Amino acid sequence: MNVAILGVGTVGSSVANILKRNQDIISARAGMKINPVVGVVKDLNKKRDCDIPLTDDINSVIARDDIDVYIELMGGVEEPYRVVSQILKKKKAVVTANKAMLAYHRYDLQNLASDTPFGYEASVAGGIPIIKSLREGLSANHIKKIIGILNGTSNYILTNMMKNSSKFEDVLKKAQELGYAEADPTFDIGGFDAAHKLLILGSIAYGVRGKPEDILIKGIKNVSSEDIFFALDFDYVIKLLAIAKKTDGKVELRVHPALIPKDNIIAKVNGVMNGISVYGDAVGESMYYGPGAGGEATASSVIADLIDIARGNKNPMLGYQPTSKLEELELLPINEIKTKYYLRLRVEDRVGVLAKITNLMSENHLSIDSFLQKPRQSSDEYTTLFFTTHISLESDVKRVMGLLQNEPYVKERPFMIRIEG
Amino acid sequence: MNVAILGVGTVGSSVANILKRNQDIISARAGMKINPVVGVVKDLNKKRDCDIPLTDDINSVIARDDIDVYIELMGGVEEPYRVVSQILKKKKAVVTANKAMLAYHRYDLQNLASDTPFGYEASVAGGIPIIKSLREGLSANHIKKIIGILNGTSNYILTNMMKNSSKFEDVLKKAQELGYAEADPTFDIGGFDAAHKLLILGSIAYGVRGKPEDILIKGIKNVSSEDIFFALDFDYVIKLLAIAKKTDGKVELRVHPALIPKDNIIAKVNGVMNGISVYGDAVGESMYYGPGAGGEATASSVIADLIDIARGNKNPMLGYQPTSKLEELELLPINEIKTKYYLRLRVEDRVGVLAKITNLMSENHLSIDSFLQKPRQSSDEYTTLFFTTHISLESDVKRVMGLLQNEPYVKERPFMIRIEG
Ligand SMILES: NC(=O)c1ccc[n+]([C@@H]2O[C@H](COP(=O)([O-])OP(=O)(O)OC[C@H]3O[C@@H](n4cnc5c(N)ncnc54)[C@H](OP(=O)(O)O)[C@@H]3O)[C@@H](O)[C@H]2O)c1
Ligand SMILES: NC(=O)c1ccc[n+]([C@@H]2O[C@H](COP(=O)([O-])OP(=O)(O)OC[C@H]3O[C@@H](n4cnc5c(N)ncnc54)[C@H](OP(=O)(O)O)[C@@H]3O)[C@@H](O)[C@H]2O)c1
Repeated sequence: MNVAILGVGTVGSSVANILKRNQDIISARAGMKINPVVGVVKDLNKKRDCDIPLTDDINSVIARDDIDVYIELMGGVEEPYRVVSQILKKKKAVVTANKAMLAYHRYDLQNLASDTPFGYEASVAGGIPIIKSLREGLSANHIKKIIGILNGTSNYILTNMMKNSSKFEDVLKKAQELGYAEADPTFDIGGFDAAHKLLILGSIAYGVRGKPEDILIKGIKNVSSEDIFFALDFDYVIKLLAIAKKTDGKVELRVHPALIPKDNIIAKVNGVMNGISVYGDAVGESMYYGPGAGGEATASSVIADLIDIARGNKNPMLGYQPTSKLEELELLPINEIKTKYYLRLRVEDRVGVLAKITNLMSENHLSIDSFLQKPRQSSDEYTTLFFTTHISLESDVKRVMGLLQNEPYVKERPFMIRIEG
Repeated sequence: MNVAILGVGTVGSSVANILKRNQDIISARAGMKINPVVGVVKDLNKKRDCDIPLTDDINSVIARDDIDVYIELMGGVEEPYRVVSQILKKKKAVVTANKAMLAYHRYDLQNLASDTPFGYEASVAGGIPIIKSLREGLSANHIKKIIGILNGTSNYILTNMMKNSSKFEDVLKKAQELGYAEADPTFDIGGFDAAHKLLILGSIAYGVRGKPEDILIKGIKNVSSEDIFFALDFDYVIKLLAIAKKTDGKVELRVHPALIPKDNIIAKVNGVMNGISVYGDAVGESMYYGPGAGGEATASSVIADLIDIARGNKNPMLGYQPTSKLEELELLPINEIKTKYYLRLRVEDRVGVLAKITNLMSENHLSIDSFLQKPRQSSDEYTTLFFTTHISLESDVKRVMGLLQNEPYVKERPFMIRIEG
């Protein structure tokens, strides 16, 4: 089986290297040899740590007749979509690790692919076979809920904030030095990377459409050391979670920092690792853990897709036959989300303030589950109040936060973290 | 697709029920309806909680022409092997949850099956798609090591011993009352159930042959409260582990209680849950967690196999093409295992004893990594010594234990637990 590698960067060069290094076992498993015959790059002068014939003329590679599978590892959205569409129209198989392209074009690609194999295991959670597990391993189940830690950078930062009581900015800097965070980390710590992956999982579980713009995406940059202390005190950890959940016949898709009980298995996914808990009606909870990024780990999934194609496996791209409409559930509007909330308020430390706040909450349907006020430092004019609520409506919480912000005794923008589980 | 359910007990009735309850989603995913047309039982008079036509005449069902897939859920070894062989000879697809049959006959069945679909996801770790993950998701990797918690009963007992400082016998009794342990628990707590599953995983990872008799199998019944205390003190947990590992071109397969560092993700698999850590050369560590037993969870995997067959997927039964010889590595003889060891000795508390023991150890190539002696209770004539060793050879450890047992100052049979990681 001849493959072309479109994009020979971090992942692409690992694919070429592993295909060579593990050729023996890959052939035994695939039933044939898998040959990387050509790689496409932008800059032919760059040094590469793999030896595969290279070209910068992508069109000549697409035009070839001797390529069986094209591996798209260039990155981007519209450019790879254009390239992959062209390839699928020629009925040639495609494997990709490109979550951004899939977040926007997965249904277009599903239509184009039809019966042509299209693998994208590497697009979610790098080396963890979560696409396969969800689409094939759990195919008997109605999926009730998926809770994913899908961004290693954010998880590294939050884990280190918790373990070493460090501040966000300090840990981010360290992560950048160690190569766990990009120079511009917005895509990771802003929740967008996780959201792309969540949309893909949401399609497999629920057939739900929607683009990144349609769902709730909050990053971790406002999580403070005080939030961490509260979490530790109340037996929670804080994680950036990607959540897909079926509620009243609609689907919630949301990415945000969340408090989760520290005994949950997913709470134990630390550092740069990823983990995904899936709840099915038959199986109950299962959890998948592993490296969410890195050249070799991601290439492991890319090659698994190649072996699947060599074996002649035929899984419908999104897990259900395109002729049937799985559920095609609608997205739940963000304001209709119901969960528990944690609120942090910085207020004047004087008589009557707490009563005003709790009144305002109860008038707006927020009922308090727990409350914490730490002794004020003598140097400090203000005090911080921590609340958790019972199950509440997102719109109620937002209204309360807006109202509180305008109260004269509230000294900072109130901060809220959703609670999960 | 018409299926026959051979054995309508705990798992079989769940299969029938889920096929009905989740018919909508299963059809969408499989691309066709999956109909359970008949079930086979021994006793037609028993009450069942599912409604599928039943018979006690298995031969009439095997003889039918309208069955596409046979699901073997009867249990046993030779009887189901005979039945399944007959079915495969007719080129009819088989799905089974029967690890005992596979522990003895997986290579015979591989030969018989040839191109006929043969699913056995449910045979290892119930609802966790570990066969699929290992055979397909990680197919690009040379597998370095698999560490599994594969028996829920044993894990429940050890977890409770650790959490509540309870004694083995007391927790076993509680487990029996709760239905987590059988009246005769030997198969589970003796490590045999885990060993059956380990042999299956070993075949996928390494193509290794071997039957339960060929590998090291130790159960948990001699794990004492003192071992638990030591573990907690030294930041370990004790788990019944099933280990497959490639060492110097040979394969170790072994099941035994083990000390593992409490920070390992697999150490966090508690209660009746199962978990499997797989280390691949490309992916690094990934871990799979979920329910290892129970009717619905196990049926989830059985039905996933059915959907795979309906989709036309064609994975070689043991993950490599029968025409190629994967690795067919040999088993490492038990005495050649090398790992760290924990030793517990009950000895007379007098001058010179410790020197004698440490001399005896060093003469036999055991080098001590840590040592603990707790203050003796005044009522107690003896004291307990705890050692951990550096990496040592199994045969050396056994020799030392044999020698120690014959020393006059040693008061009980010395006890050893292997250390992993
Ligand atoms: N890195 C990871 O850990 C990881 C994990 C999961 C998924 N992914 C996904 O995998 C994909 C690749 O990631 P990566 O980290 O390997 O990226 P990368 O290191 O930046 O490599 C991209 C490669 O594509 C080539 N390329 C880009 N645009 C091109 C064009 N228009 N024509 C021809 N070649 C082009 C580049 O050429 P030059 O070398 O000449 O610049 C480079 O070789 C992305 O979609 C990413 O989201 C990555
Ligand atoms: N239970 C679990 O959680 C679990 C998990 C993983 C794997 N498994 C495996 O799944 C298999 C089934 O387990 P199970 O718990 O469902 O067992 P079970 O409840 O004992 O059910 C066995 C069924 O097979 C029938 N049967 C037994 N021998 C038969 C024969 N010779 N001819 C016709 N019918 C026969 C029995 O009939 P009667 O009802 O008339 O007695 C019964 O319906 C076993 O291989 C087991 O190791 C079970």
